[in-house]
Order: sequence, then structure tokens, then C-alpha cells
Amino acid sequence: MPYVWLGEIMKDVAVIGIGMNRWGELWQKSIRDLIAESALLALEDAGIDRVEAMYIGCMSSGLFTDQEHLGAIAPDYTGFCPVPGTRVESACASGGAAFRTAFAHVASGLSDIVMVVGVEKMTDVDGAKATFALATAADQEYEVYNGVTFPGLYAMMANHHMHKYGTTRDQMAQVAVKNHKNGMKNELAQFRTEITIEQVKNAVMVADPLTILDCSPITDGSAAVVLCSMDTAKKLTKKRLVKVVGSGHASDTIQLAQRSDFSSLKSTALAAQQAYKMANRKPADINFAEVHDCFTIAEIMVIEALGFVEAGKGGKATIDGLTAIDGKIPVNASGGLKSKGHPVGATGVAQIVELVKQIRGEAEPGRQVKNANIGLAQNMGGSGASSVVHILEGV
Amino acid sequence: MPYVWLGEIMKDVAVIGIGMNRWGELWQKSIRDLIAESALLALEDAGIDRVEAMYIGCMSSGLFTDQEHLGAIAPDYTGFCPVPGTRVESACASGGAAFRTAFAHVASGLSDIVMVVGVEKMTDVDGAKATFALATAADQEYEVYNGVTFPGLYAMMANHHMHKYGTTRDQMAQVAVKNHKNGMKNELAQFRTEITIEQVKNAVMVADPLTILDCSPITDGSAAVVLCSMDTAKKLTKKRLVKVVGSGHASDTIQLAQRSDFSSLKSTALAAQQAYKMANRKPADINFAEVHDCFTIAEIMVIEALGFVEAGKGGKATIDGLTAIDGKIPVNASGGLKSKGHPVGATGVAQIVELVKQIRGEAEPGRQVKNANIGLAQNMGGSGASSVVHILEGV
Repeated sequence: MPYVWLGEIMKDVAVIGIGMNRWGELWQKSIRDLIAESALLALEDAGIDRVEAMYIGCMSSGLFTDQEHLGAIAPDYTGFCPVPGTRVESACASGGAAFRTAFAHVASGLSDIVMVVGVEKMTDVDGAKATFALATAADQEYEVYNGVTFPGLYAMMANHHMHKYGTTRDQMAQVAVKNHKNGMKNELAQFRTEITIEQVKNAVMVADPLTILDCSPITDGSAAVVLCSMDTAKKLTKKRLVKVVGSGHASDTIQLAQRSDFSSLKSTALAAQQAYKMANRKPADINFAEVHDCFTIAEIMVIEALGFVEAGKGGKATIDGLTAIDGKIPVNASGGLKSKGHPVGATGVAQIVELVKQIRGEAEPGRQVKNANIGLAQNMGGSGASSVVHILEGV
Repeated sequence: MPYVWLGEIMKDVAVIGIGMNRWGELWQKSIRDLIAESALLALEDAGIDRVEAMYIGCMSSGLFTDQEHLGAIAPDYTGFCPVPGTRVESACASGGAAFRTAFAHVASGLSDIVMVVGVEKMTDVDGAKATFALATAADQEYEVYNGVTFPGLYAMMANHHMHKYGTTRDQMAQVAVKNHKNGMKNELAQFRTEITIEQVKNAVMVADPLTILDCSPITDGSAAVVLCSMDTAKKLTKKRLVKVVGSGHASDTIQLAQRSDFSSLKSTALAAQQAYKMANRKPADINFAEVHDCFTIAEIMVIEALGFVEAGKGGKATIDGLTAIDGKIPVNASGGLKSKGHPVGATGVAQIVELVKQIRGEAEPGRQVKNANIGLAQNMGGSGASSVVHILEGV
């Protein structure tokens, strides 16, 4: 089983700085503005004035903004030049993949202080072009060519989950209701409005059974974190130290059609298995999680893949309150992709921002998780062809 | 000076497998075919049947082939699924950046055996769209918006170099003549034809003083390498071990206009400084090099930035034969970007393939460098906004 981590991380790594801008339709800001804004917030939070390398998580700046080479744009426009920058792309898991890459970079000794910026500027193109750009995360030759888009792919997964396990529309809608309730209290979220199960079910249909309120939005936004070796972290910061204790990453077939089962997320299960093993933790040890609720059904399938509940029990657990802010394991206290917004390359980094904020006890009143000591972030690309899982722990 | 490496690499890393397909206009092959072709060749060369992670260097599969998420495509179509894949982009330095990222990954202990595939499929779009896609490596808002393309940017650098140092058209043309002479003997090169200085000078003008024969071509191609820890390499391979002894990466302003000097490549000089320091080597220790001759003037500026010759002496040194296959320090024995081709994301990985091939003594007769023990690869993005330098040594 090559996907189960059996090695030894050479250096302990901590997150010492976090930054995130207010997400939404930010017509007045270019992609370089977004990068600089979160980068400088993270630098300020870390209390430092320089980094040694940057990684930029971004899915498709080429198709969204006609600009590749963010690895050069980012250090240049944050004032870090000639520090090196490298863009990492893994569709909607670009942010998580960039964080994992930076984690390995610090653990290797190649640099000591590394910044990760996740960013996507999605509203400079119209809806059709945005849908096309996002569809490049699926199989262009076999899926997209035949007309399927992401709501269509997740709708197939939802229908199969409903058929196989009896998952209901109300259970799926409850994911959106819960996440909007949390997001209302998040000052940086795109949609800070309360919604009801009835509103979700009666909203405009996108791909049966998913309505517009089952779908995460198109968003402009960025998020940034600063990583460094634990030894350096102890010298640099007086804030609570947050250690990266687990990291996992796995793939699945790019085509949904080639999988043996539409109702489970194998790549997430495998990535979680690696992260739990590295952290020497089990699902029951996790205090809270940020997961990839690109569609409501996704959150249900993810909490099953992470082992928080058995396969098929995710919908019922959600409506029963397991993942509510005062539940046994709060999920998406930030509002998730649904309410906070989903600038695809930024999402995975924003999840790490949220984990650190919660572990430090810095979240807004009403959405701060009690005893938030061990947090998990799960970020996913395509219809689950890539999954990245991280576990962070306050020390 | 944050860009000078002062850390300690936690694990020694070796390259144990190389693979590259025949480059050219490969209309019958899709980008996933190209990835799989080189990946399987590298696997066979390494004599192994699995890897634990993949990195994919690619500049703009979104604009060239409507397909992002190669991090999922690559493991899927090489049969490695559920092994994780991550795409790395740094414009034309994507391959070098992917190799450096994989190097850090292995050195961190996160995985032991990692494959890097560089790829670009450029001929599925017409020339105008290819030029547009390549221009996304420059500053979209300030350079491209005003109509400049890459031949134009390098032409400005060439004119300045000619004005400042007296570099001549013949000296620049000699870069192309030398690289075509080497490339003729490279079975995998795109253009295996001999050319003369007169032909270069009299070819169709692209951007004064650069003619079409001063420019590297549009190419489809891929290249792959397998990295692993030195301990594992010793167990796995009977071939000559090739160790990664130096790695450097630096940035410059994305806009040419914002630099104090058009006639030098600061990012390459800084990246080389890091790589030399890590390797504990100086320019005179390097036996041969593969450098980024996207335009003839680029090779002249690069050999100056690497310290092979003094600033301003690159042109004369080239025409005097310093960098010829039988010169003191052969440069681009592979044919370089000019003759071998330049599938942008593949180029940096193909440079590593060539270094290993030369160090093992496996290059074709007539282009095998004598005493090729220490090789340097320099890969560059945009007009030098990103540079990556690696030094490999036979052990």
C-alpha cells in the first residue's frame, strides 16, 4: 500500500502566521492585489518581515485572468523579490496541495520560513467561462467533452447516495443551513445570511437534486499562512504554537465513471488514513474539522470518508446535529465553502487559517469551537480525484 | 540575503531513473499520452514498478489543452492511482521548479520514491493562441496588455546587450549553430538539421535583431525522472548513482521594465549562488551545463550569470568555442531548447534527464561530453522572473 505513509518527517513544522481577506465579488481588486493583501496580513500576524520562499495555490489563473507565473507575481507584488515563488495546482485542492508542498519544503531543511498563499480571482469572466474553467478539473476528453459540469457530477453522486443509503433532501439541505448559520458570524464570509431547509429545497434547480443553495459560489479571495520549523517558531512567536502533525494526499480516477462506487470518496479516505497515521490519531481524537463542501452532498460523503461516521450515516448525523457548532465534532465552523465562498485555489489555505484561528481561540463569538485543540482540514479537487488532508494540533 | 541558502538538507537525494519521448509536433498524441510515455520510460530505466508520489511540471495545460488537474490525470493514466500527484507551474521554469519541489519532498522524508514528469502539448492550438498562452508568463496587466510578446522582450535584452558590451549578431547566431550541431546527434530532438550563421542571420525576422532561427520552437513533448533517497538508491540501482548536490531558486520582477539592468539575469545569478553554495562548488568545477536558450541571447546572458564567463563576454566565448561539445565547458550538448525543442513545462525536467544521461555516459556518439561528472541545469521562466538551478554529480 504505497499510499500509506511509512516514513519519518525530518523536522517538526509549525504554522505561525495567518491572513485572509474578506471574500466576495471583488471587482475592484486584481489577482495580484488579492495575493498581496492576505500575504501581508499573514506576515503581520506572524510578527516577521520576511520569508525565504513562497508557494502559491491557484487552480486556473490562466483561464480566469490570462495570467500564469504567479510564482513570480507573488514575491514581486508582496515586496519579497528575489525570494523564490512556486505555484502549485491541483484543481480545487490547489490550496491544500500548496500547503503540503510547503510543509515538505520546511521539513526538508531547504528553507526555514515559507509562506503559502492561496488565491483565485473568478469574477472577471462571465458565468459560462467560469463554468468552463472549473470543468477543466474534470476529464476534458471523456467527461467535459460530453457536456457534464461539476454540479452534474455531484448530482450523480447525490442520487446514488440517496438510492443506496436513503439519504434525504432535508439531510443534504441541512449541510447548507448549518454552514450558513456559522458563516453569518464569520466577518470574512461571502454570504452572511441565514437560510432554511425549505429555502434550499425550493431554490432554483441546478442539477437534480442539487439546487443553487446546495452549491458553493463563485468567489474572489485569498488566504495565506506562514510555516516554519518548530525550533524557529518557538523563537519567533508568543502566540499559541500550532504544529502540523499529520499530512495525507491521495488520488482517484479523474473520471467518475471509472470508479467502482459513486457513493464514497476513496481518495479522501486514503489521505485521511495517512494523516491519522502520521499524527498517531484516530477520527475520535479530532475536535473539529474544515471540509470541502463544494456541494452539500460532498460534506456528507466527506465526513463518512474521514471516519467521523459510518458509510451512509453522514446525512442523518448532520440533521441530528453531530457536526453543528455545539455538536460532538463541529464541521465547517467557518461557514465552509457554501457560506464563506469558494475561490478555488484559496479554499485549502483558508481551511488552515481557520484551524489555526480556532486552535488559538481567536474565532468570532458564536462560532468559536469549545476545546478546539486538534483540527482536521480536508480539501478536494475535481469529483474527488485529488484529496489532501491535514491535522493541526495546538502545543 | 534571504536568497542564499544557509540551511541543511536533511537527506541525500539521487536520481535513479530517466525517460523522454521523441519531441516534435505530435498531433496523434494527447497530453495524457505524453505524460504516460515518459513516465513509463523513467520507471523502466529505474528498474522499479511503483513510485509513492508524482509532481507534474506544466506551464499552461489549461490554455493549451483545456485541461487543468494534471495531478490527477498523471497517476491515473500511468497506472499509479491512488498515488498522489501535484502540478507545479512556474512558466517555462515549471519543469525545474517541479524537480526542486520533488527534491524537497524526498529530503523531507514525506515519501521515499518520487517521480517528476514535465510536459507541454502546444500544437493543438494555432500560433496566435500559443503566443497568447506563452505571454501569460509575462506581466499580463502591464506588458502583454501593451502588446509585447516574448520575442519582443528578449529582443530588447539583446539590443541592450549589443549596445552595452558589443555583442554581435554572429555571436548570437553561433548559439543556434552550436546547439543545432549537437541536436543533430540527439535521437529525441525536434530539429535535427545543421544550420549556419548566415542562415540564422538571413532567416525571417521575428523581433529585431532576433530571427526565427534565434528562437526556440513550439513543441509537444515530455520528460520524466525518478528521485529517491540515496540510501534507497544504493539498494535499487546498479547504474551509476547521480546525486542532487545543489539546488537554487530565485525571482526577479515580473516586468522587464522594472529592472535596473536589461543586460543581466539577476535571478539566475542568485539561484546559481545558492546551488554552488549547497554543492560547495564554484563555476570552474562544473564539467558541462544545460541552460535555457529560449532565444540565442538568453544562452549568452545565462553563461554570464552562471559565472562561466565575465559579464559581457558570453558572445565572444561562444564564438571562440568555450561552450562547444569539445570546449572547456560544453553547454547544451542535448541541442538545447533551440534544436531539441521547447515544450515549456517539459524543458526543465529534460535538462535533468540530459545531465543524468551524460554523467552515466549514455549520450549518443558525437555529443557525449568527456569526463562528464558534474553537470548544471538552469531553467528560467518569463524574461528571467524565475530561475531554477540544479547541480548533479556522479558518485
